[in-house]
Formats: sequence, structure tokens, C-alpha cells
Amino acid sequence: MEKRGVQVVEVGPRDGFQNIPDYIPMELKLEIIRRILAAGVRKVQITSFVSPKAVPQMRDAAELTRVALEEFPQAELFALVPNWKGAERAAQAGLLEISTVISLSESHNKANVGRMVEESLADAARILEHFSHLKIGLDIATAFGCPFEGEMPLEKLLALMDRLYQVGARTFTLCDTIGVAHPQQVREALTAAHREFPQAEVGIHIHDTRNLGIANTYAGILAGADFVQTALGGLGGCPFAPGASGNTATEDLVYLLDQEGMSTGISFERLLEAAKFLHSQVQGNYSGHHIRIGNCGGPN
Amino acid sequence: MEKRGVQVVEVGPRDGFQNIPDYIPMELKLEIIRRILAAGVRKVQITSFVSPKAVPQMRDAAELTRVALEEFPQAELFALVPNWKGAERAAQAGLLEISTVISLSESHNKANVGRMVEESLADAARILEHFSHLKIGLDIATAFGCPFEGEMPLEKLLALMDRLYQVGARTFTLCDTIGVAHPQQVREALTAAHREFPQAEVGIHIHDTRNLGIANTYAGILAGADFVQTALGGLGGCPFAPGASGNTATEDLVYLLDQEGMSTGISFERLLEAAKFLHSQVQGNYSGHHIRIGNCGGPN
Repeated sequence: MEKRGVQVVEVGPRDGFQNIPDYIPMELKLEIIRRILAAGVRKVQITSFVSPKAVPQMRDAAELTRVALEEFPQAELFALVPNWKGAERAAQAGLLEISTVISLSESHNKANVGRMVEESLADAARILEHFSHLKIGLDIATAFGCPFEGEMPLEKLLALMDRLYQVGARTFTLCDTIGVAHPQQVREALTAAHREFPQAEVGIHIHDTRNLGIANTYAGILAGADFVQTALGGLGGCPFAPGASGNTATEDLVYLLDQEGMSTGISFERLLEAAKFLHSQVQGNYSGHHIRIGNCGGPN
Repeated sequence: MEKRGVQVVEVGPRDGFQNIPDYIPMELKLEIIRRILAAGVRKVQITSFVSPKAVPQMRDAAELTRVALEEFPQAELFALVPNWKGAERAAQAGLLEISTVISLSESHNKANVGRMVEESLADAARILEHFSHLKIGLDIATAFGCPFEGEMPLEKLLALMDRLYQVGARTFTLCDTIGVAHPQQVREALTAAHREFPQAEVGIHIHDTRNLGIANTYAGILAGADFVQTALGGLGGCPFAPGASGNTATEDLVYLLDQEGMSTGISFERLLEAAKFLHSQVQGNYSGHHIRIGNCGGPN
């Protein structure tokens, strides 16, 4: 019944770092990525080619990418690009894989990338066509729910995926952007997506806002997710909401998969050390549990 | 496939409060219980009849029980009793239900109640026989793992349950005392327990130490748990380990069950208000997420 060997994709250096207001020196970013890879993670989203005005934290994207590609030639490194311009910059920096984002809900797309879904679709089609030598992932934001429009119907998700599939998308990440998905919904979405698009890779990207990060990620894995995106330490959240959480913590997920006998090739101990190092170096909002655990017998 | 209508049992006034070093005034304890019941929770573990020297927080157990029974005659109120003496005191205070605890691991039993498992078994048998007019739950501590002895084999759990069943136990709570269970283990334990003891009620009591509180509780519910024990706000942990977590947060679980369409009869909103009230009144270690959530659109 269980699926073995799901790919754990680390997105903390993008999704975690983008929420940190103070600039993290590039050397420290690289050291975090180094430790993540040393723990056995194979694929890391290392940065975002977004406007430095919008997210000053990511102003070192091109330089960091060049250094990382040089130092870690075996790793699968990729970056998020919000639009055509970002794709150009990422390709120029030498990346072989990028992911771009489009929201399922009109209002979130407007808020996130400042334009209509149709415009994002056109941009995605253009990116898919022009950068056909790159692997291009499509992140569907608010795939399960939107802060403005509420729960998103599965039919709407499948319709958007279909339009993207028609223009060449073969890798999809269903993103629970604000952490409102529930396990049954994740199961249903993955099952339907695999049924409708058997040729596509479909993964999930889950935020832990309502304490369902692990449960949703685990439900997705059992339902056959090809990959899951998580963030070291569960670093993330939102600068405007003290309690909003980041992605499911990578080390917490790896602990679970180890316990369940699902191999990932990742050393939990080394990953936990990396998470503790991150926690000691970067002040932020961490939802991971293992970075905080002491030793205690406990009463009952 | 999903089971509807699992009973959510609130244990925070016992398991959460016992970890708070400063005495919580009895009136405040009663106010918390009042708000929990007002939200629609039917069953609450209100206190523990333990030695006031061991746990000074619980020194008001008898008086609190008397007042609560008087004020909330419709509620199912029960208390934890670690031994014969506690059972006597609880019965005297007028409770119709108690739960007593025995560890699956010898070393944890020694650490928790200061005696061998055989002695606890004899005590449990005596309690079951003498207080046959009461409903008596058997909490199996360290049912999934022990801080001293590591993972506990399922056969050992079933053997202990069998000995307790022989002396009349019909309600079991499988307790993940230190939060080391994983979902598959919870499923297997519940499936085996129901198969071996079809006449017994079997529930679970899960700690969230490793961020698997909700995932384990949910796995248990899907595997047919008759009840789950959770604590308002996820209050708990261990005074000696800053990161150790309490039980799964009741309101986080109720949110999940609402999303999944599993009715509990509990108002999530009212429960969340109760949790926020608790959080504002009692300083402690809270693992619940909803008590901290603000409003945020979030980027991806």
C-alpha cells in the first residue's frame, strides 16, 4: 500500500529565506545548501529570480546560482521564476531546471504576481516553448484554497492543469500556499491529477499553518505524489502574521519516512544538524519540532 | 473508508496542567473546563488523584471534582488515578469513571509510578474488582516506545492488554507517552487490538514531540480508534525539556475532522476561543497552531 522512495525536494533556501527581512549573506546561504546536500538531499530550490525590489533577500540569485552550480555539479538545483524575465535570468545563470508559478485563484494571482491568470498562462506557455531545453515545473499556487476566494474546486484545478499540459507542462506542484488543505483533499487531488495526466509528474508543496503539514504531506505520499517540497527547519511563514507557518519541516518529514521504512537516501541526523545550524544562524519562524526536542521521559 | 463520529476526549486539565509548575487557581481550572464543555466536548479528564507531594498542581483534585460534578451533571467527567489510593479518593469524590495507568516498559513504570509492572497489574486487578460500579479505563503508557527501552514490540503490548482483559479491563488507551509513534505503527496497533479484543473499546493518546501528533491521531481515527485523547491548545510537554510537546491540540484536531467531514459535535470556533483564553491565562508550552494564526495571503 505504501509508496517507497518519494523524492524529498528542499525548498527552504527559496521559500524559507524569502520571508526573512534581514539579508542573509550569500556565503551563509551557500553553507546551508552545502549542509543540506551533504545530508543526502539531491534536489534543492536554491533561490528565486524575482525582482530585487520586490524581494531584496533574493538580489544575489544570479551570483549564488553560478557559485552553487560550480560547487555542486551532481546536485539537482533549480530556482523559482515568477515570469519571463526571471526565466531569462535563471537560464543565463546556467540552471537546467526552473519552476514558475501560477495561482489557481484569480485574486491570489493578482496579489502574488500582479496580473491576471490568463496573462500568467500566456507567460508560462511562452517560457515552456522558448526554454524547451530546460526542465520546467509548474507550481499551482492556492491549489487547495485561497485567502480571498476560499476552498478551490478540484475541477478548477484540473482545468488549469489541462491548459498548462496543452502548452507542454509535464511537471506540476500542487501548492497549499496558505496551509488550508486537508488530507482527503490532497489524496483526491493527487489521484485525479495522476488519472487525468498519467504522463505528468505531480508533487505537492504544503504549508503547516494549521498543523496539518505533516499529515497532508504524508497523505500525499501515500496517494502517490512523485515528489514533496519541504523546507529545512520548517522555516517560513509570513512577515505580517506571526503564527503563519512555513512548509513542512524537511527533517520532521524525513524522520517520519525513516520510521515508516520509506527510504529517501537522506541522513536524518545530518539533516537535523543542518536544521539546528540554520536555526542558530537565521532568526525566523520555525515550525520544525526536532530542532527543539530535548531528552525527557515524560509522564503519560 | 473514513470512520465518522470518533469521540474526542479532552485531557488537557490533567495532562496539560500537570506540567505547569505554578499552581493554577481552582476557579480558573473550572472556567477552562466550563469553556471546553460549552464548545461541545462531552468527555473531559478533569484532574488526577495523585499524591499532592508528587504533583502539587493536583492538590485540589477532590474539591475540583466535587464542584465540577455539581455544575456539569451531563458531562462525562473522569480522572486519572495512579494507584489504589487514588481510586479510593476519586470514588469518594463521586466520579463514575476513572482511568489508571500502567507502562508497557518496566523501566518507565518504575520511573512513572515507582514500582514494577507486576505490582501495577495487581493494583489494576484490585481496582477493577473493587470498583466494579465505575467505568475504569486502562492507560497503557509507552505503548509505542519508551525513553529507556526504545520501540515497544506489538506482541508485548497485546500480551499486557490480554492480562488486563483477563482481570476485567474493557477500555484501553494506547498512549504514545513520549511522542515516538508513527502512523503505520498506530494503525497496526489499533487493528491488532480490535482483532484480539473485539469487545473492548480502544483509544489513543498521542504526544506531538516529533510533529507527528496530528498524523498519528488521524491515522488512529482512520484505523478505527473508538476515541482519541487530546489537550486544549496542545498544552503540555516536560519541565525538563523545553521542546517536548504536549498532546495533539484538541482544536487543531477538531479543525481537521471538520474539514474531512467527520462530525464531532464540537464547535471549532468556540473551542478555539477556549484555547486562546487558556493561552492567555496559563503560561506554558503550547503546540497548537490555530491559537497563533493571523491572517496572511502568503506568497506560495
